[in-house]
Amino acid sequence: MNRKVDILVVGAGPAGIVSAVTARRYYPDKNILVIKNVANGCIPCGIPYMFSSLKNPQDNILGIDSLTKNNIEVALDEAVKINREGKSIKTKSADEYVYEKLILATGSSPVIPKISGIDKKGVYPIYKDMDYLKTCVEEIKKAKSVLIVGGGFIGIEFADEISNIGGIDVYLVEALPHLLTNSFDQDFSLLAEERLKARGVKIFLNTRVGEILGKDKVERVRFETGEELKIESIILGIGAVPNTKLATDAGLDLGRGKGLWVDEYMRTSDPDIFAVGDCAGKRDFYTRRDTAVMLASTATAEARVAGASLYQLKVVRENKGTIAIYSTYVDGLVLGSAGLTETSAKKEGFEIVAGNTEGVDKHPKGLPGANKIKVKLIFSRQSGILMGGQVSGGISAGEMINIIGMAIQKRVSLTELETLQMATHPYLTSAPTMYPIVLAAQNALGKV
Amino acid sequence: MNRKVDILVVGAGPAGIVSAVTARRYYPDKNILVIKNVANGCIPCGIPYMFSSLKNPQDNILGIDSLTKNNIEVALDEAVKINREGKSIKTKSADEYVYEKLILATGSSPVIPKISGIDKKGVYPIYKDMDYLKTCVEEIKKAKSVLIVGGGFIGIEFADEISNIGGIDVYLVEALPHLLTNSFDQDFSLLAEERLKARGVKIFLNTRVGEILGKDKVERVRFETGEELKIESIILGIGAVPNTKLATDAGLDLGRGKGLWVDEYMRTSDPDIFAVGDCAGKRDFYTRRDTAVMLASTATAEARVAGASLYQLKVVRENKGTIAIYSTYVDGLVLGSAGLTETSAKKEGFEIVAGNTEGVDKHPKGLPGANKIKVKLIFSRQSGILMGGQVSGGISAGEMINIIGMAIQKRVSLTELETLQMATHPYLTSAPTMYPIVLAAQNALGKV
Repeated sequence: MNRKVDILVVGAGPAGIVSAVTARRYYPDKNILVIKNVANGCIPCGIPYMFSSLKNPQDNILGIDSLTKNNIEVALDEAVKINREGKSIKTKSADEYVYEKLILATGSSPVIPKISGIDKKGVYPIYKDMDYLKTCVEEIKKAKSVLIVGGGFIGIEFADEISNIGGIDVYLVEALPHLLTNSFDQDFSLLAEERLKARGVKIFLNTRVGEILGKDKVERVRFETGEELKIESIILGIGAVPNTKLATDAGLDLGRGKGLWVDEYMRTSDPDIFAVGDCAGKRDFYTRRDTAVMLASTATAEARVAGASLYQLKVVRENKGTIAIYSTYVDGLVLGSAGLTETSAKKEGFEIVAGNTEGVDKHPKGLPGANKIKVKLIFSRQSGILMGGQVSGGISAGEMINIIGMAIQKRVSLTELETLQMATHPYLTSAPTMYPIVLAAQNALGKV
Repeated sequence: MNRKVDILVVGAGPAGIVSAVTARRYYPDKNILVIKNVANGCIPCGIPYMFSSLKNPQDNILGIDSLTKNNIEVALDEAVKINREGKSIKTKSADEYVYEKLILATGSSPVIPKISGIDKKGVYPIYKDMDYLKTCVEEIKKAKSVLIVGGGFIGIEFADEISNIGGIDVYLVEALPHLLTNSFDQDFSLLAEERLKARGVKIFLNTRVGEILGKDKVERVRFETGEELKIESIILGIGAVPNTKLATDAGLDLGRGKGLWVDEYMRTSDPDIFAVGDCAGKRDFYTRRDTAVMLASTATAEARVAGASLYQLKVVRENKGTIAIYSTYVDGLVLGSAGLTETSAKKEGFEIVAGNTEGVDKHPKGLPGANKIKVKLIFSRQSGILMGGQVSGGISAGEMINIIGMAIQKRVSLTELETLQMATHPYLTSAPTMYPIVLAAQNALGKV
């Protein structure tokens, strides 16, 4: 089959879906087709919650309703070759799609470490494929023990959820001295570690898996320290690499990073080919270095830029660079991070000043459901500009990190934060006299 | 007694406390004294929660620990006269305090409407005085029925809390066609009305109290419509007026509004006298008109400006004007508003475009505890600048309104919001593809 489409999107994860839907909004007369290579995708950040929080793992499906209701076609197939001269794509089913504009949203693949025994049964990398994941969940639930490799967001969320099930010994192993070190300074990492330990999760820090042992199936792991554990299943949560082969085979440029080189409007080195999401390279907001942020929220922001910019650059892009902005949830504790940590800012060479505060997220603090809240803000010392923030607290901390994210993106200063106008309410926030973003800014100001 | 102090603060509400504490930070060598005229103050926004949410009404006390631990003296007395030439204040106890810098944080007093019978026993204006309020709470809890006059924030929070107690018939009367009309458009007001009705609160809209009947004590009210209700107690929640007499008697200027005229640094027409909080006039962020915003959060922002600016203007104030930014809570529903509503923007003459979205505050939506979330954003049509926003949802909506508030204060544009970078998490936010602030911006963009 040979078909002509106007806009062709490869990939139906959040980046693919949002770029297609945005393209529909900006270019209502174009025909749009999305090629997806897994029958049933899933909501990436919902994967850990398929174990316990969701009644039915199937509820985590990433539907394509938003495509069909926006008059966007979907084909289940896999793009295998780009012909840039002919502006077409070949698929696994030997179909050919001719495009005017091509959006690559090919995502990323889990890192599979080169460990002896990694290919044994019972070792589960996290592929974003509902049918695969449902099997993983079933198998892991049958096990008596699970080792999660990698103490980043995914790792701690799996550990939290699986420890909820009961009856499974949960182990978490991290090569670095603390969990979550990419996004949090030590005092925040410790909070997550405490919660997981209290749930019975056994954490190994400064530790690497040396070997996976067993006949066909995982039976034990041996850490590089020599220590051994009896283990029935292993989840790999140590990061992902961009899926760029389709693009690089066609001569598209990677630039200096591992993702595809893109300009401010998500155009690759071929002006008719865009790349969005995990497969696209990202430039750090502060330094313009390559940064390995792979988040669905980042992907959707990029997809909105690409979808609008296919035939014309409709708007000037305002934020030139990616900030890492995350939140996570462990045993009721919310942790959020935006921008640089104190550690990462110093490593990057910034002279900074950090402000800290701790309080309660309701007022008076005797109100039911009050949680401790802790905020840290990192400012450039001389320029006074906000460069990063971390929050821990209850549910409200999940949006509080987005206040900090907005402030970073708008390059808000220390002195502006000190006199911020904000809404406060007994059930919803700290007292106006104690609003943590303001107090953390004041604490930093006291050190300048 | 005649005493010399460097910095004298009149009033120990949030504005007085925060200006004194800020002055301590900026001017560590000055001696500071706060005159307070009620023995036990209370957290203003916590007052409704003294009825039911707080185990002990006393927990709502506004302590002065932050003053004493910052080496700030406190005197229980009442300032009755300012002598500007001599730079001194006379008190009710006939003491005299000579100051270098004076901060007026005299607050506001509840509006007492001129209704026949308003002075009967059982009618309770809300004074921010713990001893008075404890008696109110006790008396109202003994009653079989209560009428709350005024359907603003205070009114609906009292209605919600008192309906929690059980056994008390709760009535709420509002002169305007809907509750909360100062801060919300009708579709949001309706949500609050539904919740209160579901709790059994009887709401009278477009209705005014004509007369309060009874011997010494309230027994009935007659509405202007002629309808009568048996009522044992009445709470007045129809607003407040700035306490400015002390200042105006000394010749300080009111400007065009009801509050004291102040410049950008909270200096009154006398450069050694500052005014902060409810007693100080506020200029609207968009129009520079006088605005009657009286919120503890606004007061504390002003207090931080004043406290820093007493002897020198330490920093350039960045936000020139007050935005109304509030949140409230009724039966688990959170409502937040920042800046102008669609109605108020149109009334002011702005050509606007509004964007709306409705969704769920977790993803996938099957996660436990998910709430509906609804966001409305108001933009200047030509300039694309954000002018206001409203949110309804669960707990997280309380900080989401502060994202919008930050964006307003930084004059964020429609197109910036469309590609906002934000943190999303299954338990904490909508999906990245459905983040409500982004979707509301896109909805507005579709109308431009």
